[in-house]
Amino acid sequence: MTKALVLFSGGQDSTTCLAWALEKYDEVTALTFDYGQRHRVEILQSYKVAELAGVKHDVMKIDLFSKMSKNALTHDVEIDPGGNGNLPSTFVPGRNLLFLSLATIKAYQLGMSDVITGVCQTDYSGYPDCRDDFIQSLQKSCSLALDKEMTIHTPLMFMTKAETVEMINKHGKLDWLAESHTCYEGQRPACAKCPACLLRLKGFAEAGMKDPLPYL
Amino acid sequence: MTKALVLFSGGQDSTTCLAWALEKYDEVTALTFDYGQRHRVEILQSYKVAELAGVKHDVMKIDLFSKMSKNALTHDVEIDPGGNGNLPSTFVPGRNLLFLSLATIKAYQLGMSDVITGVCQTDYSGYPDCRDDFIQSLQKSCSLALDKEMTIHTPLMFMTKAETVEMINKHGKLDWLAESHTCYEGQRPACAKCPACLLRLKGFAEAGMKDPLPYL
Repeated sequence: MTKALVLFSGGQDSTTCLAWALEKYDEVTALTFDYGQRHRVEILQSYKVAELAGVKHDVMKIDLFSKMSKNALTHDVEIDPGGNGNLPSTFVPGRNLLFLSLATIKAYQLGMSDVITGVCQTDYSGYPDCRDDFIQSLQKSCSLALDKEMTIHTPLMFMTKAETVEMINKHGKLDWLAESHTCYEGQRPACAKCPACLLRLKGFAEAGMKDPLPYL
Repeated sequence: MTKALVLFSGGQDSTTCLAWALEKYDEVTALTFDYGQRHRVEILQSYKVAELAGVKHDVMKIDLFSKMSKNALTHDVEIDPGGNGNLPSTFVPGRNLLFLSLATIKAYQLGMSDVITGVCQTDYSGYPDCRDDFIQSLQKSCSLALDKEMTIHTPLMFMTKAETVEMINKHGKLDWLAESHTCYEGQRPACAKCPACLLRLKGFAEAGMKDPLPYL
């Protein structure tokens, strides 16, 4: 029986990864980190999507980031979308380094060797730990650390947001996206104005499909 | 001004690294992880050594391991020294992967690019994440994740325990080892019988020096 662990934030990309993984593996576990996100609705929606998908769902509470840094995801500061070579204010240095290391160790503990993450370098917004060269390097580091060949799959790495929409639609799970959370402002219906909502809506527009998520 | 972060458990090896770092850098910070060690004396002794050394000391409480695994360091099970190809029962899979990732992110946050750890592959006891190939790989992963050239120094990597004793003695800090904690049984005076005490005593014997630590 094949088994895999999906790093699952409850957002559009990791929901798409869940659909992808369920076609490839016999047993899929979704792992969500409760790290003090500013908007608790993200955690709530992750439960809803996991239930729709019918997968095991493990929510791991970690308080590392609140100790490591102050940033827009965990503190009430204004969202800066970045650009002009600046990192967006949502940047937590090394966030994926920690998330992926923890997920890979967790997978190892569960007797798995496959971890799936929705990181994507196409809409690269200044996060160095979403790039393919980092993932390749970390996969090697984790394999060496655990003395077991671990694989970190990134099915969305080189896809546009439109292609990601097409992928989940192809898997017949477009309706799951009605419960996935994207809005930086934490709103449901979503605000349709923040950078995250705009990126999501642009992807649907380019794919020529309607987002099942309600917007204001 | 040069600055560095020393991963500091309060044991013999990281105490030696502290002495090493203080000769190389203008400002040294010691980082101790309070991860639910079975013996609280380890944390206490780390405070004592850091005070002797006169360095900044940051103790970061993390509850990850108690969630990730059950093992001899955090639970009350019998110590198995390993051997015969078995990992010792003190093994926490990926422990150094997490410690070093966290330390490197912390160093980055403090504006440093140098992290020092006392891992050693000479007295390699089955921990894959103490080996040089792992450290080299993780250094690359961290640098990519943070988009900054980070260096993980391992001054003890290829040393015997005797050479480690000689190193701290050369730096004139042998007396610090009176406060460093090694004993797996958590005893002070140390038990002189557990694998950790025996390895330490062997190192001193081979270096022809007397351990300032009191033994039973």
